[in-house]
Order: sequence, then C-alpha cells, then structure tokens
Amino acid sequence: MTSIDRRTLLGAAGLALAGNAVQAASEPAAPPAAPPRDVTRTLARYVTTARFNDLPDAVRREGTRTFLNWVGVAIGGSHHETLDVAVSALAPFSGPPQAGLFGRPERFDIMNAASLNGVSSHIFDYDDTHLKTVIHPAGPVASAILAYAEMRPVSGADFLNALVLGVETECRIGNAVYPNHYDVGWHITGTAGVFGAAAAAGKLMGLTEEQMVWALGLAASQPVGLRESFGSMNKSFNPGRAAANGLFAAILASKNYTSSDGMIEAKRGWANTISTKQDYREITEGLGTRYEAALNTYKPFACGIVMHPAIDAAVQLRDENRLTPEQIQRVDLKVHPLVLELTGKTAPRSGLEGKFSIYHAVAVALVEGAGGEKQFSDRAVRDPVITALRTKVVPAITPGVKPEQVDMTITLADGRTLSRHIKHAIGSVEKPMSDADLERKFADLAEGILPEAQIRRVMSLCWEVAKLKDAGEVARAGVQA
Amino acid sequence: MTSIDRRTLLGAAGLALAGNAVQAASEPAAPPAAPPRDVTRTLARYVTTARFNDLPDAVRREGTRTFLNWVGVAIGGSHHETLDVAVSALAPFSGPPQAGLFGRPERFDIMNAASLNGVSSHIFDYDDTHLKTVIHPAGPVASAILAYAEMRPVSGADFLNALVLGVETECRIGNAVYPNHYDVGWHITGTAGVFGAAAAAGKLMGLTEEQMVWALGLAASQPVGLRESFGSMNKSFNPGRAAANGLFAAILASKNYTSSDGMIEAKRGWANTISTKQDYREITEGLGTRYEAALNTYKPFACGIVMHPAIDAAVQLRDENRLTPEQIQRVDLKVHPLVLELTGKTAPRSGLEGKFSIYHAVAVALVEGAGGEKQFSDRAVRDPVITALRTKVVPAITPGVKPEQVDMTITLADGRTLSRHIKHAIGSVEKPMSDADLERKFADLAEGILPEAQIRRVMSLCWEVAKLKDAGEVARAGVQA
Repeated sequence: MTSIDRRTLLGAAGLALAGNAVQAASEPAAPPAAPPRDVTRTLARYVTTARFNDLPDAVRREGTRTFLNWVGVAIGGSHHETLDVAVSALAPFSGPPQAGLFGRPERFDIMNAASLNGVSSHIFDYDDTHLKTVIHPAGPVASAILAYAEMRPVSGADFLNALVLGVETECRIGNAVYPNHYDVGWHITGTAGVFGAAAAAGKLMGLTEEQMVWALGLAASQPVGLRESFGSMNKSFNPGRAAANGLFAAILASKNYTSSDGMIEAKRGWANTISTKQDYREITEGLGTRYEAALNTYKPFACGIVMHPAIDAAVQLRDENRLTPEQIQRVDLKVHPLVLELTGKTAPRSGLEGKFSIYHAVAVALVEGAGGEKQFSDRAVRDPVITALRTKVVPAITPGVKPEQVDMTITLADGRTLSRHIKHAIGSVEKPMSDADLERKFADLAEGILPEAQIRRVMSLCWEVAKLKDAGEVARAGVQA
Repeated sequence: MTSIDRRTLLGAAGLALAGNAVQAASEPAAPPAAPPRDVTRTLARYVTTARFNDLPDAVRREGTRTFLNWVGVAIGGSHHETLDVAVSALAPFSGPPQAGLFGRPERFDIMNAASLNGVSSHIFDYDDTHLKTVIHPAGPVASAILAYAEMRPVSGADFLNALVLGVETECRIGNAVYPNHYDVGWHITGTAGVFGAAAAAGKLMGLTEEQMVWALGLAASQPVGLRESFGSMNKSFNPGRAAANGLFAAILASKNYTSSDGMIEAKRGWANTISTKQDYREITEGLGTRYEAALNTYKPFACGIVMHPAIDAAVQLRDENRLTPEQIQRVDLKVHPLVLELTGKTAPRSGLEGKFSIYHAVAVALVEGAGGEKQFSDRAVRDPVITALRTKVVPAITPGVKPEQVDMTITLADGRTLSRHIKHAIGSVEKPMSDADLERKFADLAEGILPEAQIRRVMSLCWEVAKLKDAGEVARAGVQA
C-alpha cells in the first residue's frame, strides 16, 4: 500500500496549497476560535477527486461488507407492512420505472426507488452502524446510488468508490456534531445521511467541485428525522427520505441549481444551526488517509445497538447453561443510562415496540437464544412465556458501565446465580461479524422472500461488486420475479 | 360566533378529559414547567374538524388575498433561470402529468408540481409575509394543495378552508419557536411551512385525526432550509421543498403510514430539537377564534421591507406632483440605521444588487413610480437616467426614526421643496395593500408571461375561489398554452 499512501499524502498536500495557502501564510498560529474556512469546499474537492484506486484494501473490503449487509436487510424488510403502505401510497405519483425494489416486483423512478429501498433497509433496525455516531451509513447512501446505477450504468469499482465516499462524508459530518446533535433529538442517520447520499450520487454523476459544493448545500437544507419517531414507521422513513433528498440535491446541482458556498460551516449554516458542537477537523482532516468507512459494523441482533450487550449475555448464559424460562426468577442488569432512555418500554405491544424494550429483548433472547427479526415480531412480544419473563428483567443504571457494556446476573429458582460481563458485544468493531456471520444473517432475512438460488446469486454479486461491469446488476438480481 | 366559541371550548374541555384526566387529578396545580400534552393532537383535531362555514368573513377575505397574491408571484417567477434549471432537472423523474406549473406549459406529478410552483413563488422574494415570524405562508401551503386539487377535484370553499388552516398551522407553529428558531439559522418558511402543507393537504384528503397526527409527525421529520442559503437559488428551493414534503407526509399518512403521537411537543420532538424557545400556547390556544391567517401581508415592492417606506414616499411625491427626473436636484432621507446597514450599496451592478441599494430604490421609484420586479432588474440598475438620479439620493441616519418610517425631502431645480413623512408604509398591517394594489402587482408580474385576457381571467378566478366548483380551475387557467 506504499504507493497508495504516498499518492494520498501528495493529494492532501496539494489540496492544502490550493485551498488554504493564503490563510496558512498569514495566520501560521490561527486561534482555535477563528471562523472555519472552506469546510464544504474541502470535502467537495475530496469527493470529486478521490478514485477507487486510492482506496486501501481494508476499506474496499469493509465497503463490500457494508453493501452486502445492506442488500440483505433491504430484502428482509421488503414485505413488511411499512413498505406495503409506502409502496401503495407512492405508486400513483412515481415517474418512469427506472429502478427496482429489493424483494418486490414494482419499479419506480430513481428517487422513489431510493426512498423505498432506504425504508426497507431500516425497518428491522438491523442494518449497519458507525458506532462513533450511531449513524446507519448504508441506508441513505446505497439506496441513492444503486437506484441511480440502474438508470445510468456505472462500473462496480466506481459504485463501490462512491459508496465509500458517501459513507465517509456522512460519518465525518456526523463526527463533527456528535453527540450534541444526537442528544438534542435528531435522528443522525437522516440528518447526516442526506450529505452521504448527495456526495455519493454526485460522485457518480461526475459533478464538478462547484456543483458538489451546491449538492452538499442543498443536502444541508434537507435534514430528516427526529428521535421522537422511534418506534413508529417514521423511523425507517428517515433513511429513505435522506436517500431521496440527497439524490434530489445532486440532480439539481448537476444542472447548476446553486446553493451557498459554505453551507456546512457558515455562521447561519448547517452545523451551527443544528448542533451546539462543531468540530470541523473531523470533516477536513486526514481525507484519503483516515477512513471512517472502515469502522462500519453490522448488527447480529435486529434492534438498537444499545441492547446488544444484554442480548449477547442472555444468549451466552442460556446456551451455556441450557436454561429454560421456568428456571429464571430474576434477571438483573447493570446498564448505561442510554439503555433505559432509548429502550425503556416495559410493555411493548408490537414487534416494532419490542425493539425499544430492553425487557422484551432480554426475555426473548433467554427463551429463544437469538435476537433476529423473528424475535422482534408481533408474535414474539405477545408470547405468554416471553411476556411473563420480561417482568422479571430489572435493569439498573450503573455509573461506570459504558454503553457497549452490560453486567447480567440471572437468579434461578433453585437459588443459584449466573453472571456475565460483556465488554464488547458480538458485532462491535472489536468483535466483528465474520463474513460467514453476514451470509447467515443475509440468508435468514431473505428466506421466504427470494428462492434460495437467487439469494446465493445476489450474495455472490455483492461480494464481487468491485469487479462488476454494471453495478445495477445487483439491483436487478435482487427483485422478486 | 357564539355557537363556534361554545363548540371550541367544549372541544378543548373534552380533550383535557380524554387525554389528561389522570395527570389533572393528581396534579391540580401543575407548575408552568409541566411537560406539554397533546399539542400535536389538539392541532390535528382542530384541522380535521374545522369547516369553511366556521371561518369569519375577514379570514376568508384575507385567505383569498393570500391566494391571489401567491398566484401572481408564482406566475411572475415562472421563467426565471432558477425555475428553468429546476424544471429541466426534475422532468426526467416526474410521475404522471397530474398538475401544471403557473406560467409554463409543462405538467408534473403533484409532488414535483408543488415543489416547482413553490420555488417559482419565492424567487423574487416578493411573496406574502406573516410579520410576527417572517414566514412567507402561501408558498408551502398553496403549492401543495393546488397541485392536489388538480388531481382530485375539491370545491373552492374546501380549498380556501384548507389554505387558511394550513397557514394557521404553520404560523402558529412558527410563533411557538420564533425568534430563537429563526435567529439560530433556520429559514422558518421551510421549517414551519412543511407543517402547513401537510395540514392543508391532509385536510383535503379527509384524513382522520390520527392520520393527521401522523402527517404532522412526518412533516416534523422534514424541515427545510437554512438562512445561509439566502442569495442563492437554494432560498426559493426551501418553500418548494416544504410544499412537496408536506404533501408527501399527508399522502403517506392517508395510507396509515404511522408516526409518533406527539412529534411537535415530545421531549425529543420538533420544537425541543429545533428551537430553544417553545411556547405551545401559540399552537393550541384560541383555535377557531384567533386567526394568524388574518394577519398576512403582501409586499408592494420587490425588495427587503426596510426600503419600503422610502419607496412609498418617493412614489407618492412623484405621482402627486407629476415629477420628472430632470426636475429633481436632491433627495434627502432621514432613516433608521438598519437602512444603511442592509441596503447601503451606492452603485449596484445587477438587479439583485439593486435590492440592497436604497439609492437605486428611491431613484427608480421616482423615475418609474413603482418598486416592482421590473424596477429591480438589470435593465433598471443600468438605466442612465436612474443611475444619474441615484447619486442625488442622500440618506442620513437620524435618531428617533423607526425602521418602518422615513422622512423624505425632495429639492427641485426651481428651488421648491417637497416633503413626506411615512409612519407605516403601504403593505404593512396598519396600511395594507388594497385589492386594487394586489391586482396591479399581479398584472405587472404576469405581464409578458400570459396574455392580458388570461391574466384578468386568472385574477377573477382567484377572487371567486370560494365559489368555484373545482378549485383546480385556477391552476388550469394559469398555465402557458
């Protein structure tokens, strides 16, 4: 990788000379409070010039895994009521049949297709996660560019490059404003995601640097999603709409629909308006050398990441001890405050609400030894054995426990106690899903929606995406006949 | 209105009993900091139940004026480069030709049509203004429902009722968060406007109360616009996208795509996320008795409000004295400091720059007796008579002069002086544009775009909108053959 590193470094140096030379010369010791300069433009320049050949192997590999995982969850959600409703609502307004929907027969114009695949991929809350920001990166980005790639063929290498650049864009922008931006109430996947979609789609469209600045500006004008919507169909709406908004921004910019030059960093721009924290170095530093896209993770369980340590602990203790529900008298959990803030529903009434209930998640994991989509169905949250067990789950906010950790102690009817400390749950950066894990997850999600041979073919195309002549092939291979 | 008042009061009481009974019983003296309850639902209930027959005459009249003014500015902007670019960008993705664009021949699906008419109506910054919030109310709302009315015919009375309810919704929500929300950087027309569009479109669709709650929730998830975009095409993008987003929200909700129950007021909902001020009484109090929609105003001049008193004085003195440019030796103005801060350009080079020059504004008003879009064109700022006269304009910051005031003294070549004090300029709430003024503005905007007979017919349909069997007739009458 020496040649790649060298080229990347030269690129960064050239960028600094071209964009900031005057400022660098006259203000060698600029104070930290100096107004940020050229943040949007620096990012736009990087996105428009970065090449597939510049991507390190590890980044390509993670980009491919990101793509495969996203296709799997998009197929998996494709026949949920949420998508049925959205498809029937939008069909009368769709443009030409430019792009397909995973797992379904309908075709839509690319913006509606992007929106619907984006919804589908987030319905189960089972998609990918950039843990530093809790952004689910693939939904907004992949939905936008795969729809575009169906209309205007692009090579798999260009597609994967755009995917990585889109993920990079949204995660870096997310880093700049996280956690304040998320804490106040924004669903960061939809607010940062729209930038990722615009950047990636604009990259495939071949936007100039100026057009990319405008695309990012029009994206900044369209943040999507509030945390209050969690637990309703509105949650999966957010990455879908972010994908469509980003694509919309790039399409307008490609025709020279203008925006401001500095929509991310200006005084009345995005970061100041939408967050009390702005760390622009997260956006502009190390472009082409440090990759947030390499830090993506994939959920082993079909619910918010904050419950994963507890599910992991429950599955481990159950399997190791062959526990049955009637043995269990009480389940004590030591958790970070976020667990109860986000997943404190004690009596969920639907599968969707179950995703926001640490009580249900632990109970179902103890009964069924899993945390897949089937464990967050209406059936599961209404199962009498599970509803009885969930009343025995007692989470306690405990200082010192990190969000990615849990301490679980199960008290059995015979008086014994079983304990498990989870430092990093399965699916974390430290303990990632293997490629085989991802394939099992994909196959489980697609089962019953596509025939087995088709599932294997789609997975195979995903693994080979960088070598495809036409990335749209993946979309065409993943629809329902 | 006694029966209306009684019904409204009963409605509010019933709501309190249904929604807050437990809390009310246990906390009879709730502190002011008590979490707000049922804000979204109260608003949804009002919008879904309010009838055209409930609207006071003055509100119907202002709603009609709001509509006419909006149609005029939408026609006026229809051939600006901004709209040409947007139309060519979006045409390849449009759905069926369900709705037209004012002043143009193209037809789009209703969401794209709403978007484009919304852009068109804001291009000149010449639309209506709710002065308490600086929201431009008509763009998001009228754009959404007129497009819908072309596809699904609705009576003019139902249309006007929906328009008023949409304006009421966005202005009340704006009141709840203004000025903090605007000060931080949001373009409030796009952020509050999306609620107005969703409410009005949802009303025409006949949403149930629950569906309206969801429509407002999906609208809350899609705020549009940052002030940093002012001065670029992105500014007029905002009301257009707000119209489309609101319509999108209502369409999804009509098929039971769900959202949260309290997206406006919840802890992680819209108002807390998007503003440091939340006054929910502005949303829920006096519904059906106090109308923000009655406070709408219309710009007589195609520029920032701060120059309006001087233009008004210039037009009055010119017309009363039949002044010609060569008679004028000097024009002294006593003004508030904001006038020079915002509009101090002495030698504007383009029509757009002319909007920021008090010198040009006064000179062109004295020469042409108007301050419309033609007076802020490239032609006008380069006219030798006007550029000569603008050097004779001498503004002086004068203590005691309010922003809405001006003192003008014109010294003539024959030694006479003419003076005029403006306390409230034409177009203010205190001195509103007359119906005839609105007609002149409309005709001036539409001239050269539609034939004169067609202009008169569209205006006539606007005035009669409440009596139309099919409100979509206005849209069909306003397109280019």
